[in-house]
Amino acid sequence: MKLSLIAQSIGGQIIGNSDVEIKGVKEIGQAQKGDLAFLLHPRYLSFLKTTRASAIIVGVDFSGNFPTMVKVANPYRALVQVAELFAPPKTSFPQGIHPTSILGKGAVVSPQASVGPFVFVGEGASIGPQSQIYPFVYIGRNCKVGRGTTIFPQVYLGDGCEVGDGVIIHSGAVVGSDGFGFMREGGSYRKIPQIGRVVVGDEVEIGANVTIDRSTLGVTKIGRGTKLDNLVHIGHNVQVGENTAIVAQVGISGSTTIGRGVRIAGQAGLAGHIQIGDNSTIGAQAGVTKSVPAGSFVSGYPARPHQLAKKIAACGAKLPDLFKKVKELEETMRKLEERIDEQATEDG
Amino acid sequence: MKLSLIAQSIGGQIIGNSDVEIKGVKEIGQAQKGDLAFLLHPRYLSFLKTTRASAIIVGVDFSGNFPTMVKVANPYRALVQVAELFAPPKTSFPQGIHPTSILGKGAVVSPQASVGPFVFVGEGASIGPQSQIYPFVYIGRNCKVGRGTTIFPQVYLGDGCEVGDGVIIHSGAVVGSDGFGFMREGGSYRKIPQIGRVVVGDEVEIGANVTIDRSTLGVTKIGRGTKLDNLVHIGHNVQVGENTAIVAQVGISGSTTIGRGVRIAGQAGLAGHIQIGDNSTIGAQAGVTKSVPAGSFVSGYPARPHQLAKKIAACGAKLPDLFKKVKELEETMRKLEERIDEQATEDG
Amino acid sequence: MKLSLIAQSIGGQIIGNSDVEIKGVKEIGQAQKGDLAFLLHPRYLSFLKTTRASAIIVGVDFSGNFPTMVKVANPYRALVQVAELFAPPKTSFPQGIHPTSILGKGAVVSPQASVGPFVFVGEGASIGPQSQIYPFVYIGRNCKVGRGTTIFPQVYLGDGCEVGDGVIIHSGAVVGSDGFGFMREGGSYRKIPQIGRVVVGDEVEIGANVTIDRSTLGVTKIGRGTKLDNLVHIGHNVQVGENTAIVAQVGISGSTTIGRGVRIAGQAGLAGHIQIGDNSTIGAQAGVTKSVPAGSFVSGYPARPHQLAKKIAACGAKLPDLFKKVKELEETMRKLEERIDEQATEDG
Repeated sequence: MKLSLIAQSIGGQIIGNSDVEIKGVKEIGQAQKGDLAFLLHPRYLSFLKTTRASAIIVGVDFSGNFPTMVKVANPYRALVQVAELFAPPKTSFPQGIHPTSILGKGAVVSPQASVGPFVFVGEGASIGPQSQIYPFVYIGRNCKVGRGTTIFPQVYLGDGCEVGDGVIIHSGAVVGSDGFGFMREGGSYRKIPQIGRVVVGDEVEIGANVTIDRSTLGVTKIGRGTKLDNLVHIGHNVQVGENTAIVAQVGISGSTTIGRGVRIAGQAGLAGHIQIGDNSTIGAQAGVTKSVPAGSFVSGYPARPHQLAKKIAACGAKLPDLFKKVKELEETMRKLEERIDEQATEDG
Repeated sequence: MKLSLIAQSIGGQIIGNSDVEIKGVKEIGQAQKGDLAFLLHPRYLSFLKTTRASAIIVGVDFSGNFPTMVKVANPYRALVQVAELFAPPKTSFPQGIHPTSILGKGAVVSPQASVGPFVFVGEGASIGPQSQIYPFVYIGRNCKVGRGTTIFPQVYLGDGCEVGDGVIIHSGAVVGSDGFGFMREGGSYRKIPQIGRVVVGDEVEIGANVTIDRSTLGVTKIGRGTKLDNLVHIGHNVQVGENTAIVAQVGISGSTTIGRGVRIAGQAGLAGHIQIGDNSTIGAQAGVTKSVPAGSFVSGYPARPHQLAKKIAACGAKLPDLFKKVKELEETMRKLEERIDEQATEDG
Repeated sequence: MKLSLIAQSIGGQIIGNSDVEIKGVKEIGQAQKGDLAFLLHPRYLSFLKTTRASAIIVGVDFSGNFPTMVKVANPYRALVQVAELFAPPKTSFPQGIHPTSILGKGAVVSPQASVGPFVFVGEGASIGPQSQIYPFVYIGRNCKVGRGTTIFPQVYLGDGCEVGDGVIIHSGAVVGSDGFGFMREGGSYRKIPQIGRVVVGDEVEIGANVTIDRSTLGVTKIGRGTKLDNLVHIGHNVQVGENTAIVAQVGISGSTTIGRGVRIAGQAGLAGHIQIGDNSTIGAQAGVTKSVPAGSFVSGYPARPHQLAKKIAACGAKLPDLFKKVKELEETMRKLEERIDEQATEDG
């Protein structure tokens, strides 16, 4: 594909050779001759000297040099467009239900849905049009799957769970396992039946091997447009708002409520029964033990306002020095006291 | 169902309208007209003003007001009973082996067990009566599954592993993967064959996407009545006692021994080759590097006795202030020294 | 098997009864009569008094006593050899493709490969000789699997991913899920198509329920001989060098590069876009926010050189005491000032 064609489709301006033939699109550090690459962050500037890419897409305000560049208003948007252009064909299944798959009584699959081989669909479940169900997916009794939703292999949807339109669920995710609810009784645990459900809103993306527990009695909810990275754990009764992003290996304990537009960085852990206000940010590995108001930025363990947490962490590095200083102060003080005692004696 | 009937079945006393018709049971924050809800913790008191529930179950000592209440000695026990009453029918498979499933030579499945579609049972494996095996479950060679055990979809039981009676294993759990055992040899790793097994006791519950590694030579053991939440990792040779609860995303390194009645909160990590005494508690995100005696409560990183850890954490918040104070002290001290020097000179 | 035969095969010297019959090999804490056990670490010395093992393998420099011992130059190597000797037969499938499995158009499976029941192999994928594919494995379009590779049940290999020779992938691992890449657009997230791949080198081992995301445009790479423990997360575009070991529940954020011979202990988290130099060590639960040079040993949160981190942690325990000391210093100082004020007055 000629670079000029690509530039046109992304609304970019070519500086250099517009006739160069582009065969692929690659990370700037991995690009070879014939590849188009992106400069998405100043940290990659040094790659401009070493990359073999035939052309680079940069922002309009980029002042550096490269033999062939395409300047665009928003390189991230260009990335989305170019990646769509160069996306290789994916595994897909024809519309209809593969003969090896098993449907329970009363299950309704849209004739425009594609159910691949080795899929189990429980009684009374429904799957909307344009949805793709990959092999080894288990869809429980009375589940509802919307339209245009993709469920990758080996996903589990527990009985009664609902998944909206345009949702993507990656391989190995478990939606609707029992919540961790037990009653202590004479030294052992008695199970509290978990009879609630999980409701996943439209345009949600759920990462690989994520686990989302069903509510004890009501609904565990993932709001529209929210994105969960891999290996995230969502406890029972948790409510996640819209357009929230939760990075890999985060754990949210039961009955916690998370607002909309929240960002939770990797491996953070949230206690149960707390509220995270809208548009808050939670730092990586933070341990959040208390509710935080809208617009907060907290980090550390226990989580505190980020500026304070940073100060505390900086203090940490100087702690050995502080201990030494206090020891010296004590010594100096002791000597001063002696001198004053002496002076008092002299005076006396 | 009339409220009076429910109250009778849970041994509760109705205050208010005993004729109200109950259609469902919900979390207090999600309940609508016709729903029964629970007040399980004072933190939910404020919901009494806003909930639309038609009736609330409370403890006998509850002194607040609500139009229709059912007072019970133990609201948690009532929750278990009511949840069982209102539990929707689950996906279940008829007794016998679904024709799509595959059994290895010498595998023995009780005629009262239910093996759903797409199940693989290896040679010499056995499955006891009243057990339910869901689709896409893999049961390895010579595995033993007891009676009344439920194995949800996409679970893996490695060769030779044993699972007791009344066990529940949630979707995606891996029981009997190889332990992480390698020998360093000339800059690369040589695999130490992991030829041991995993033995899971009666009444254990294993969460979604949990991983439990087989022992190198012996047995990795999960004691009777122990409950593992989602995404927990249990290393090879680990021994977990009875009636212990391990919350989501906890990691237990190889050869560590955990007593009975222990509680380990979310995302905690335990070093290898240590002992956790009976009835101990380990805080969320703790990093436990040393053995702890029975009845301990440790938290923080590195884990320390909880009261000390709390003090240290509280100190943390005041660290920036402490640094300032020490600086001031040094300054004051310097001035004092000057004054004493002056006085000494005057006196001299 | 006679002990003398075992000793011969591992090049060991028997001290005691060389005729003893060995029926099995066990952990020293679990061994019974007829078992052979290993003393691999001084921490297990006390077991020598209680174990019922019929013989113990020890290092040549072991100076303690046990009725029957086998002295070897390297007990770990002996462990590998003995474990191979006593390994029970595993589930295996005959060469060829099980009739229940499904192959896409143009997929090429070596006649010497074993593809078990319920396997899905996408269009154009290839599987090399001596490879074993277990049930419920999904191999995407145009994937390449080398020779002598074992893929355990319920593994997902996304479209276009490559797996080398002699690789082991444990149950539930997801290789080639989409990276977590979104563009913020008017308060919601727009997906950046993830069109890259994952390339897994020869002799790599991937633990149970691990997730490895495909690159946005290029390649996410796991270097030859590297070992990943269970529940590890590898973000998109990450490059892991050769012979690196990553312990359970570690998370590596996108575009980070990890050298060869690196060791990352359990539950550590690495920020994105950083470099970890060759032969570095990262402590358990560390939070690595910056690049570290080759040969580093960092730990703690935020990660710092291990010796400093240890000092800081030790200071932590003494913090409450330090606060008390500083308070006392302030008090002593106040009194000193008063005394000096008095002396000055007296002198005046």
